[in-house]
Amino acid sequence: MDDLRRNDQLDEWDRGSFFHPSTHLAQHARGESPTRIVKTASGVHIEDRDGQRWLDGFAGLYCVNVGYGRTEIADAIAAQAKELAYYHAYVGHGTEAAITLAQMVMDRAPAHMSKVYFGLSGSDANETNLKLVWYYNNILGRPEKKKIISRWRGYHGSGLMTGSLTGLEMFHKKFDLPMTPVLHTTAPYYYRRENDAQTEEQFSAQCAADLEDLIAREGADTIAAFWAEPMLGTGGIVPPPKGYWEAIKPILERHEILLVADEVVTGFGRLGTMFGSEHYGLEPDFITIAKGLTSAYAPLSGSIVSKKVWEVLEKGTDENGPIGHGWTYSAHPIGAAAGVANLKLLDELGLIANAAEIGAYLNAEMARALADHPHVGEVRGEGMLCALEFVEDKDRRRFFDPARKIGPKVAGELANLHVIGRAMPGGDILGFAPPFSLGREHVDEIVGSTVKAVRAAGL
Amino acid sequence: MDDLRRNDQLDEWDRGSFFHPSTHLAQHARGESPTRIVKTASGVHIEDRDGQRWLDGFAGLYCVNVGYGRTEIADAIAAQAKELAYYHAYVGHGTEAAITLAQMVMDRAPAHMSKVYFGLSGSDANETNLKLVWYYNNILGRPEKKKIISRWRGYHGSGLMTGSLTGLEMFHKKFDLPMTPVLHTTAPYYYRRENDAQTEEQFSAQCAADLEDLIAREGADTIAAFWAEPMLGTGGIVPPPKGYWEAIKPILERHEILLVADEVVTGFGRLGTMFGSEHYGLEPDFITIAKGLTSAYAPLSGSIVSKKVWEVLEKGTDENGPIGHGWTYSAHPIGAAAGVANLKLLDELGLIANAAEIGAYLNAEMARALADHPHVGEVRGEGMLCALEFVEDKDRRRFFDPARKIGPKVAGELANLHVIGRAMPGGDILGFAPPFSLGREHVDEIVGSTVKAVRAAGL
Ligand SMILES: Cc1ncc(COP(=O)(O)O)c(C=O)c1O
Ligand SMILES: Cc1ncc(COP(=O)(O)O)c(C=O)c1O
Repeated sequence: MDDLRRNDQLDEWDRGSFFHPSTHLAQHARGESPTRIVKTASGVHIEDRDGQRWLDGFAGLYCVNVGYGRTEIADAIAAQAKELAYYHAYVGHGTEAAITLAQMVMDRAPAHMSKVYFGLSGSDANETNLKLVWYYNNILGRPEKKKIISRWRGYHGSGLMTGSLTGLEMFHKKFDLPMTPVLHTTAPYYYRRENDAQTEEQFSAQCAADLEDLIAREGADTIAAFWAEPMLGTGGIVPPPKGYWEAIKPILERHEILLVADEVVTGFGRLGTMFGSEHYGLEPDFITIAKGLTSAYAPLSGSIVSKKVWEVLEKGTDENGPIGHGWTYSAHPIGAAAGVANLKLLDELGLIANAAEIGAYLNAEMARALADHPHVGEVRGEGMLCALEFVEDKDRRRFFDPARKIGPKVAGELANLHVIGRAMPGGDILGFAPPFSLGREHVDEIVGSTVKAVRAAGL
Repeated sequence: MDDLRRNDQLDEWDRGSFFHPSTHLAQHARGESPTRIVKTASGVHIEDRDGQRWLDGFAGLYCVNVGYGRTEIADAIAAQAKELAYYHAYVGHGTEAAITLAQMVMDRAPAHMSKVYFGLSGSDANETNLKLVWYYNNILGRPEKKKIISRWRGYHGSGLMTGSLTGLEMFHKKFDLPMTPVLHTTAPYYYRRENDAQTEEQFSAQCAADLEDLIAREGADTIAAFWAEPMLGTGGIVPPPKGYWEAIKPILERHEILLVADEVVTGFGRLGTMFGSEHYGLEPDFITIAKGLTSAYAPLSGSIVSKKVWEVLEKGTDENGPIGHGWTYSAHPIGAAAGVANLKLLDELGLIANAAEIGAYLNAEMARALADHPHVGEVRGEGMLCALEFVEDKDRRRFFDPARKIGPKVAGELANLHVIGRAMPGGDILGFAPPFSLGREHVDEIVGSTVKAVRAAGL
């Protein structure tokens, strides 16, 4: 392979043959945007082919939670590739790695959960959960109870149904999404509330009332599930306002609406606790996991189902035979081996405690440095998640014209300073979600460079 | 990890924690079906934890095309895991492995194709293609042209929309599928034709007429795409009847209906040619790839788009900004490295030529041994795909009562003889799709054991 890679044609091949995700395809093909070929990475740093290095303040796409270059995981992958790169898990088949990981996941999941189905991506895990929600209500003889409520600003994937669950315009526009029967309710985003006078608690009560209204309008017996990240991620890195989950939970219970906690970002430690559900006291019926499960060293996702759900699934297969669901690469051994090594590393190195501690330091330092900046409307975060929201007029909470692309501009200036933050969609929001192995010195660099980048962007 | 695996709890963990795909969940949890923990594999053989070996006549799930235990691929995976296990491909980012593989895929794809988007599973690649089909017609200002026609017995995945494309009842039942706007047309399955008197050509003309009727009924300006495997796979391993594609192609062209060739099984050599599209003279607008791309050593799929489609996608992003589509693990470096090594191996070892030659031998030998059996209705295949269809009454083409599970019974007897074939859904069909590295001696074993298994099953 080395002979193929050691050449100067990569740029040409890239533009000629490679269809990048979430990219301006025309600009990239025409060579108007840079090629960024990442070559290696170690700890919290990535390095490109020209030897340039960046401190990766977003851990890839908030997924390389244990940091880059972990030989324990690379070795586990290598050993698995040698022993058995693949066998399927259909019809009761399994591999040692997949079964071991299943057990490790269930050991860590909330006690009321029962089993884990392994897929590849966060999107496909949500897709699995959606299929299972419908199946569940069919087996219970409630064929009308099928609509799904998710939230504006939620992110649940990029497929047709999972992109429908997602509540962000760029994932809907020109793709005819959202599809029925997905409905969206109010984003739990206090900073962007309509009514300036509301306290956080009042705004939470408003979110709950909006949900109640939607359910009443549609009829509770038509609503199957409520889909939510414990804390909004891609929609802006927004912790729930005070009292939010306390207000939402009883509504779901009252109407027998299943709760699907999408923990693709929050699962396995990003909020400083094993799961976000723990963090916010949720008792979900389904938990969606991906990123942190393997720290992205190999693709693997999971759908964790509760005991209550599993019982119905058993009934379903007793009545209807084998479940008609499976991906060829479900529970792929390479991903499973990476997952086992990754979860062990999280424990052994105490990385979740570090995420809690250093995440708190990151949020405090960022707030100290920039909360009072006239164009920083809010510094917010939780655990190892932190975001800044830029505004034109802070007192009036007036946002910049999106056409000015202030968020991407700050992210660009920050990259010039060799620190990666992510310009989040749907606002001028700069997000950070670093590896859990981040040190205080890295926090200081991130914060210091962000201050400079904000200035360099003319704010 | 070894300490965790070296234990006798795997069976308990499996039943207690692991949600298997396509499995009778209740029976498995209750311990009524065997645990089959595959431990290692080499060449065309797999081995379980008890040291039992099987000749894998289905290459996993027709995916381990180069055979098991290829150190070239394992080494490439190991090297990639060490150098850079993950970085994303969003916003023009890339890795050497992903870009190199994109170029290698495009070098092998039909000349009118332009770019490849990498996903994880065959299902998600079809999902990507479906999103792109809709986007395409939106950009072209044809918002009404959105319905998709696929075929009964087609298999295109297990998601909500891809499971809708799939035309097999077990993937629809209790999941409320197919969803709109997916329509199904006649399966190109000559052996199961309704009209006994038809020749193959007449039956193909019938399939074409049925398609024309469906298009006329719905309105051609509402139909976006026709989704098809070049040759039916999971629906029964059925080569198209004579004249089928010749009759279908002009209909699609006349009505400006895009052709999506799902080459998840046929791509990269299974029919003895690089692509099935080549084999049957198709010029698809999209090609879906997965399995053979990496021989399953790591999860990776792809959506190959034609120049005609790509031009519209460029227009789309010029008008609307970055494309709102992406999986975190799109173009994952581990999968890409496996793909590069796998495609090199296919070439270097001449495995596609071997698939053609040994596949022909397999089909000929199977026919010689069993075509005249009173309960074998048909022996059919193409390239390295072969199937037997069992019938109660051969002369009257009367099938067995599905409740008797004759297909699974024969497959079970065959497994007892240490050969794996797959009981296909939707009939008593025993399928074979061995690794391309199969030798004549393996064919002799597969055929000899199948003869015995048929007898042992009481046929
Ligand atoms: C909360 C959440 N759910 C689901 C997904 C989708 O995961 P994937 O990109 O692996 O499909 C993401 C991805 O960022 C996510 O943040
Ligand atoms: C033709 C075809 N398309 C799509 C798929 C779905 O692929 P996956 O199981 O990787 O999602 C399959 C799987 O067998 C297939 O045979």
